[in-house]
Amino acid sequence: MNLKKLASELKEFEGVSRKKEIKSVVESLRYDDSEYYFDIISDFGDDAAIIGIDEEKAILLAADGIWGNLLEKDPYWAGYCAVLVNANDIAAMGGAPIGMTNIISINDEEVGKEVLRGIKDGVEKFGIPMIGGHTHPDAKCNVLDVSITGIVKKDSVLRSDTAEIGDKVVFAYDLDGKIHEKFDLNWDTTTMKPKKLVRDQLKALEIIGEKKLATACKDISNPGALGTLGMLLEVSKKGAIVDINKIPMNKEVPLNQWLKIYPGCAFVFTAKEENIEKLKEVLKFVNITAEVCGEVIEERKLIVKKDEEEEILFDFNKEYICGC
Amino acid sequence: MNLKKLASELKEFEGVSRKKEIKSVVESLRYDDSEYYFDIISDFGDDAAIIGIDEEKAILLAADGIWGNLLEKDPYWAGYCAVLVNANDIAAMGGAPIGMTNIISINDEEVGKEVLRGIKDGVEKFGIPMIGGHTHPDAKCNVLDVSITGIVKKDSVLRSDTAEIGDKVVFAYDLDGKIHEKFDLNWDTTTMKPKKLVRDQLKALEIIGEKKLATACKDISNPGALGTLGMLLEVSKKGAIVDINKIPMNKEVPLNQWLKIYPGCAFVFTAKEENIEKLKEVLKFVNITAEVCGEVIEERKLIVKKDEEEEILFDFNKEYICGC
Repeated sequence: MNLKKLASELKEFEGVSRKKEIKSVVESLRYDDSEYYFDIISDFGDDAAIIGIDEEKAILLAADGIWGNLLEKDPYWAGYCAVLVNANDIAAMGGAPIGMTNIISINDEEVGKEVLRGIKDGVEKFGIPMIGGHTHPDAKCNVLDVSITGIVKKDSVLRSDTAEIGDKVVFAYDLDGKIHEKFDLNWDTTTMKPKKLVRDQLKALEIIGEKKLATACKDISNPGALGTLGMLLEVSKKGAIVDINKIPMNKEVPLNQWLKIYPGCAFVFTAKEENIEKLKEVLKFVNITAEVCGEVIEERKLIVKKDEEEEILFDFNKEYICGC
Repeated sequence: MNLKKLASELKEFEGVSRKKEIKSVVESLRYDDSEYYFDIISDFGDDAAIIGIDEEKAILLAADGIWGNLLEKDPYWAGYCAVLVNANDIAAMGGAPIGMTNIISINDEEVGKEVLRGIKDGVEKFGIPMIGGHTHPDAKCNVLDVSITGIVKKDSVLRSDTAEIGDKVVFAYDLDGKIHEKFDLNWDTTTMKPKKLVRDQLKALEIIGEKKLATACKDISNPGALGTLGMLLEVSKKGAIVDINKIPMNKEVPLNQWLKIYPGCAFVFTAKEENIEKLKEVLKFVNITAEVCGEVIEERKLIVKKDEEEEILFDFNKEYICGC
């Protein structure tokens, strides 16, 4: 496939372009209050916000809304994914989940029941309680929003704005899965696996955080592999060169689809050369295939290579993904 | 006004009846997982869920969605209230707020801007950062959901399921305010006050919790004064007799409206006789008028009295408000 065409497709796809809306929200909500007692270590721009609550620990806060079209087409899957995405947001910070709250706005009782069934199965799979929330039984349209709170030791947190020049870029995927029958951009890796493995996959990130095996991390989500890496580089104020051929992939899925896929369990890391072996080992132990695919550079561009071709996917001097 | 008619009106009004939807959600999401590391002290049924994270402290989680009609009619006020309601949920537990996340689903850019403006003013007034969230720029309808995380010492938490027989029922309102020009069931007490007083009003609840001046507490919200007391009694598995004439009220507002009002700062407490004076004093110091209005009884009914009349407002042996 022509790399120029692929790059264009990846840049324009909805999973990336809708992130632009974050910028105006972040700018509106800049916080600066001398009476605030806690320590905001990081707010918008990462998979979860980090707030120090004492000498040792920080609370992690994240929230996700499930796209309307997902909820309409498969409310069960929307409910299940609401848990999955939040679980991954906390894991991507190296944290342990405490609990979730949900807000379900339903204008269709059957949809509501299916959403709850999906949430219930998600709660059972991931082992994170849904312990509060709010219900709108009279909404104009169906909306599902979920928030999660987690906890992490301050010295073990995995951030996404801490990539350093010379770090290796590592993509890591659970390659055992299947395309969801209704959503060709969902790579389901969890519904068929025992809950112990699914939970261990996320606990592996806590180990990576504690042992400082990565300098930065994000879970791969809506923007796909390279869009997610782009967001990490954007907030780190760095660039990278990535060889697309090295990204772990399931060979049955076309390349352009794979790179846009929202996987059930996948992460992008930056890491020091000396930690790569251990990082790969920890992930392999929980069935996640990790490969070095590139390197972090000073120049603030995400450059992708494939065979003999090279393209600039994002130039952060001229454009932004989320603007954080 | 005829008490029978008033009771009927209070029972049927939307602020109370929509709480019924909570029951099915709670039943679906019962949690029982031996691997869960933390300590769920309380989940659904209170203003916030309480999860113990160590010997001394517990995290509080709450979430609220802003009613569609509020958002449509006045998006600025919806944004502001999103902060207000969450701040009160944490205060009602005797907790201190850590931070909020929001999910804004907007299909109208102007509405989106107004919502953000309201949130920003709410953040500035209440001193609680909005530190994360999610934006849907392409939603089918406008929805605003906000979650908050707080923290509290386990021995200072104020719960709503801990009312005891013989306790006094105390209603407490900031009576200095005005009906919102667009919403006749909103009693605005905060927009015209300095942020120091507004914040001190909520901090007063932390003092009430620490000094154990109340046995139970809820902030008065959508279901109004008696609907909120009803929810407290329902989860406490108790009843009460209340003299409506003793409820603090602003005399310019008709009684049936006042009792359905969602106030900017108001709480219902149950408390031991010996703590009443101190409780009233702490609240008076921050401009909240508190009065003893009744007593907690064993019989699981909320009985309301006015002059010579008496009515059963809720009979929890036969019906439920939220079913938690």
